[in-house]
Amino acid sequence: MNTFGHLFRITTWGESHGGAVGVVVDGCPPQIDVDISAIQFELDRRRPGQSHLTTPRQESDVVEILSGVFEGKTLGTPISMLVWNKDARPAAYEHLKDLYRPSHADFTYEKKYGIRNWQGGGRASARETIGRVAAGAIAKQILRENAETEVLAYVKQIHTLIAEVDTDTVTLEQIEASPVRCPDPIAGPKMAERIDQARRDQDSLGGIIESVTRKVPVGLGEPVFDKLKADLAKAMMSLPATMGFQIGSGFDGITMTGSEHNDPFYFEKNEVGGICNPDASDGRIRTRTNNSGGTQGGISNGENIVFQVAFKPTATIGKPQQTVDVQGNEVTLEASGRHDPCVLVRAPAIVEAMAALVLTDHLLRQRAKS
Amino acid sequence: MNTFGHLFRITTWGESHGGAVGVVVDGCPPQIDVDISAIQFELDRRRPGQSHLTTPRQESDVVEILSGVFEGKTLGTPISMLVWNKDARPAAYEHLKDLYRPSHADFTYEKKYGIRNWQGGGRASARETIGRVAAGAIAKQILRENAETEVLAYVKQIHTLIAEVDTDTVTLEQIEASPVRCPDPIAGPKMAERIDQARRDQDSLGGIIESVTRKVPVGLGEPVFDKLKADLAKAMMSLPATMGFQIGSGFDGITMTGSEHNDPFYFEKNEVGGICNPDASDGRIRTRTNNSGGTQGGISNGENIVFQVAFKPTATIGKPQQTVDVQGNEVTLEASGRHDPCVLVRAPAIVEAMAALVLTDHLLRQRAKS
Amino acid sequence: MNTFGHLFRITTWGESHGGAVGVVVDGCPPQIDVDISAIQFELDRRRPGQSHLTTPRQESDVVEILSGVFEGKTLGTPISMLVWNKDARPAAYEHLKDLYRPSHADFTYEKKYGIRNWQGGGRASARETIGRVAAGAIAKQILRENAETEVLAYVKQIHTLIAEVDTDTVTLEQIEASPVRCPDPIAGPKMAERIDQARRDQDSLGGIIESVTRKVPVGLGEPVFDKLKADLAKAMMSLPATMGFQIGSGFDGITMTGSEHNDPFYFEKNEVGGICNPDASDGRIRTRTNNSGGTQGGISNGENIVFQVAFKPTATIGKPQQTVDVQGNEVTLEASGRHDPCVLVRAPAIVEAMAALVLTDHLLRQRAKS
Amino acid sequence: MNTFGHLFRITTWGESHGGAVGVVVDGCPPQIDVDISAIQFELDRRRPGQSHLTTPRQESDVVEILSGVFEGKTLGTPISMLVWNKDARPAAYEHLKDLYRPSHADFTYEKKYGIRNWQGGGRASARETIGRVAAGAIAKQILRENAETEVLAYVKQIHTLIAEVDTDTVTLEQIEASPVRCPDPIAGPKMAERIDQARRDQDSLGGIIESVTRKVPVGLGEPVFDKLKADLAKAMMSLPATMGFQIGSGFDGITMTGSEHNDPFYFEKNEVGGICNPDASDGRIRTRTNNSGGTQGGISNGENIVFQVAFKPTATIGKPQQTVDVQGNEVTLEASGRHDPCVLVRAPAIVEAMAALVLTDHLLRQRAKS
Repeated sequence: MNTFGHLFRITTWGESHGGAVGVVVDGCPPQIDVDISAIQFELDRRRPGQSHLTTPRQESDVVEILSGVFEGKTLGTPISMLVWNKDARPAAYEHLKDLYRPSHADFTYEKKYGIRNWQGGGRASARETIGRVAAGAIAKQILRENAETEVLAYVKQIHTLIAEVDTDTVTLEQIEASPVRCPDPIAGPKMAERIDQARRDQDSLGGIIESVTRKVPVGLGEPVFDKLKADLAKAMMSLPATMGFQIGSGFDGITMTGSEHNDPFYFEKNEVGGICNPDASDGRIRTRTNNSGGTQGGISNGENIVFQVAFKPTATIGKPQQTVDVQGNEVTLEASGRHDPCVLVRAPAIVEAMAALVLTDHLLRQRAKS
Repeated sequence: MNTFGHLFRITTWGESHGGAVGVVVDGCPPQIDVDISAIQFELDRRRPGQSHLTTPRQESDVVEILSGVFEGKTLGTPISMLVWNKDARPAAYEHLKDLYRPSHADFTYEKKYGIRNWQGGGRASARETIGRVAAGAIAKQILRENAETEVLAYVKQIHTLIAEVDTDTVTLEQIEASPVRCPDPIAGPKMAERIDQARRDQDSLGGIIESVTRKVPVGLGEPVFDKLKADLAKAMMSLPATMGFQIGSGFDGITMTGSEHNDPFYFEKNEVGGICNPDASDGRIRTRTNNSGGTQGGISNGENIVFQVAFKPTATIGKPQQTVDVQGNEVTLEASGRHDPCVLVRAPAIVEAMAALVLTDHLLRQRAKS
Repeated sequence: MNTFGHLFRITTWGESHGGAVGVVVDGCPPQIDVDISAIQFELDRRRPGQSHLTTPRQESDVVEILSGVFEGKTLGTPISMLVWNKDARPAAYEHLKDLYRPSHADFTYEKKYGIRNWQGGGRASARETIGRVAAGAIAKQILRENAETEVLAYVKQIHTLIAEVDTDTVTLEQIEASPVRCPDPIAGPKMAERIDQARRDQDSLGGIIESVTRKVPVGLGEPVFDKLKADLAKAMMSLPATMGFQIGSGFDGITMTGSEHNDPFYFEKNEVGGICNPDASDGRIRTRTNNSGGTQGGISNGENIVFQVAFKPTATIGKPQQTVDVQGNEVTLEASGRHDPCVLVRAPAIVEAMAALVLTDHLLRQRAKS
Repeated sequence: MNTFGHLFRITTWGESHGGAVGVVVDGCPPQIDVDISAIQFELDRRRPGQSHLTTPRQESDVVEILSGVFEGKTLGTPISMLVWNKDARPAAYEHLKDLYRPSHADFTYEKKYGIRNWQGGGRASARETIGRVAAGAIAKQILRENAETEVLAYVKQIHTLIAEVDTDTVTLEQIEASPVRCPDPIAGPKMAERIDQARRDQDSLGGIIESVTRKVPVGLGEPVFDKLKADLAKAMMSLPATMGFQIGSGFDGITMTGSEHNDPFYFEKNEVGGICNPDASDGRIRTRTNNSGGTQGGISNGENIVFQVAFKPTATIGKPQQTVDVQGNEVTLEASGRHDPCVLVRAPAIVEAMAALVLTDHLLRQRAKS
């Protein structure tokens, strides 16, 4: 369905070409500071048209808060936010009405529902993520107020180009300073070039978004099904175009043996840290390596949470493609919508939002136990 | 929490060394044939001690059905099943009581709950999956009765050894004929050898389980959060020791361009198939490639669902390791429990069960719409 | 929280004096006809200012549909609807900012959340029910399309005045023809008079809303917790000002013995009915009496579902009252907001909506089983 | 379905004549003392055969804890408890196999599921409440540890006999000292006599269970749908044989006007109380009357929670009744199972358990907000 989370819950709604898109945030604790400019900042990171590297769709995507906030603070009641659809051009999709675009959701929506809004991606559009990002901005604020927890995401790989990023030190500023949102000053510009080439080729590119969360409280995650890694995986795989999720050593870790892969525990004296493990007076228990990616047994261990998400190359391309119409007749599709050769540039805000939503939900769930 | 699924729901319970482990299956449609020997068959595939390749823990793991079944058929009421813990030897864990084993859940459980059952893995033990497997056996039966849908899983990779498997033709018999549950007759024996070596080294190995589901009804999956790929990801990442999930082209697909990656649609005449798309009288729409792994827009498209799950090398090893005790003192851990050098051999039954549970839940959810 | 329903789910949001109030309907089957005028009709029945008998708050309460509907039909995606708050006059509540109005939610909201919107009832306002009524209008349409099931509600009692109503024959027209929504032509006018008197007295009245649902499919309800009577009770007791719920013989039935109370079964030949029990070719099994109120074992039996809901006299009155301010000082409260001496006049639309939501949810849940 | 609660969740299972009945308690906070004799005490209050006033079914109903408890404390993992069915005598029900007993669930289960366990009430049996009572015993312990909150229930009315009970002072000892669990020393013996008469008449009686909870934390309840009164109503109406729920002034309150019904606030100095409202240093805000029954706006206000539940006369009677068989043929039913003329005697333990479950769930939900 369209609701995510157990205690901190979002319900998103809206098609790409309906009246608006939005979200209802339920279960938000009261008295949280809501800074609408912080929400707008995240939406601006997500929106198309930020640079020549993204889709030319031009929407200012201005968020409105309709409930749940009073004099700058949350009331504990549901927070409703919306963004109007302004650049809807259904006529541009008229020729796609009776076609199934390859690797889009046209065919499956038609078969599942027997009806679909063919004016753009409908509910399957990336525009659906606006509600997630707006809600995620509030979740980030809760995490910040709770323990200065910070969630970051950035482009780790585009096509064959792989960035070098230090998860301990990377900053939001470094990410935002790059037009492709890759904080590696060498790989970033190459990626921009590769995207430009894809645009000229009327083709598209995929890649990997990596996320790191620092200052994570110990103890988040609800075994056995709502393990932190499980909920993060679901959150990420619920995004359009995602094909894979891995945490810590991920798929690469399988070529290690247990003795190589296990993360040895040690005791870190207090001068270094101590925030996350409140019951240790003079230090805290840490791991020397972090192949576990910040969770063990599905529960956060206080180390950085590091995961990666694979995004397939965008299905919308300009090159001609073979497909069928709704009657099954084979046809050639020339242009399948606005061409945005690499959505990864806009994806970090979305990945951060989903991670923040998962962590906030688990933070509240953990509080209930104490 | 310990409940999974929206309409077809399981609640598992039990620690490795408590009285028993079990599951309550709720929402099972009435009048489904329940063959207890089919459930036992799946549990036997999962249990330790099947061959010299698995852990020496010896448990017959005989399932009892306590409710919900009457004269061989489901009543529509909750089905309670349990397996008694017989080979519990808490004394064997006495020396671990005050230690945190590296990359186990000891530390995080202690920090989260302030208490833990140190007699084995407790709730974090792989023994917890017994309930999932028993419930999955019923889910498989529902899928079979509905559309002859078949879920399979097998060892695709152990350490650096990669198997060649044809997802269109691989059979349960081929999988079960291999002591390592790898249907590749060349890679399989090498894997067995590699596992034997790991045992002699007191070390452990990880790998990849691959799963294929064939004859999948079109239309399963509930955007935007309960996409089929999202629920499969959550199901797999809720298993112990899993570090990654990928569907279709997964992490490898990112080095393709959109024009290479998109799956072209075509119309397949009826002599070949036609089961899954009931409204097409003389054939059905299919894709020529399956980079999408059987879902588009989070909804099944009728192609095979193919995904992979990464399992880290088992945390329990015999080699000495550095760790800390509960006071934070650094200690050397000599032996950390029963040594099972590669749990992947027993994992296919578990992965199949979780996939079957997800698909059955979505099958019921889709029925509710019609 | 602010979500209700398992498969047919609504999430409502909005305070009485925030920007707007609204609802997201999730899980609505696709291809349902959505007639916006039918939704508006229900909202008009609920809104204040319909006659001199209701609150003078004047709001046109025009509904807007922002998503989920395409060319007059549901898409199967979430339906977002909103109504703007136009007649908000926060200044009128300024003097209540630091008081706790007796039997209002001011005190409990303040204690629960530590913050509250004192500009009117906030989230505890009856205005919150707008979203429920809008969603209920769609639920009614689903019930109608499915089996011509019709949900009605009307004023059964106000203060000491009790109406005579035949649940088998009462019609929407009869209900709407009465300014107090009491279809009894004798009791109705007396009730209007009694309400006018209460207004002159600056006092308020409570009463009973009775609801009947006819042509109910057999088999709705999910034991043991989601029994139909349980979900109806929850739905009704989640409404503002409700103090009791009873089904069938209710509290009165306890003075009967089992032999008097049991509803004898008989077989009704087909000329009379037969719609609800599809497997009977020449008739259907019915009960001669309906003390059970249409459910047995928590499942609908095809008889009319008849229940009653007690509403307390409205807490907002004009008479002076003793209370305390937020510091605990005792004060006399003169006027506590807009005076609406008897909200029951507007309640039938709300009760019908909630009943329709429950029945629709259970209809979808039952479909999933077959 | 068979799960109740959001954070403190129970899943019950079992038919009256299957192997066993039981419950899984999920979300229980860790480190709660579990006293198995306290659980057994509650089950003994619920079980048949306690005196000549209840059903002659003789079952010791000994509870076993299979998981989730370690060295007398909860682990935070699911607690599985079961009670074996020992006195199952399916042969005694053989003659009912093809009949629908009036006002039982036979007919609706058959129509809903197409199959039913005719050996007794199956899932619709009162035996299903065993799991609720066992779980409720743990919930009571949590409430006690949290704020000495105490939930009581007792027989308020049987047939036409009404008891006088002071909700401020009634004790468990007084309730348990009465064979009918009515703490009124005058009405109680009359009720016992009336029940004996009903037994001789082969007939049955209904009545009212009243419940009071004292020392309730302020702030429990989650508007707008999960109001405390709504969740209590659902909990009670999910019990077998319940026909009505009312809180505070309930159905009687409707003959009052607002000025009579509103509960005036006042400030109570500390010598009297102060437990429930921790932020008031020298006293707390209370209400002079309690027509609200302890909740306002769906949230507890710290006053006693007082509600009543109507139970219909037991459907199982000895007198001959008219009914139909599964083919619709009219038949006379002579004896419809074990005759238990008034289940209310055993109901207080069940009502207390459900109230405790609701309050505990809301206690945890409220903790998550802070």
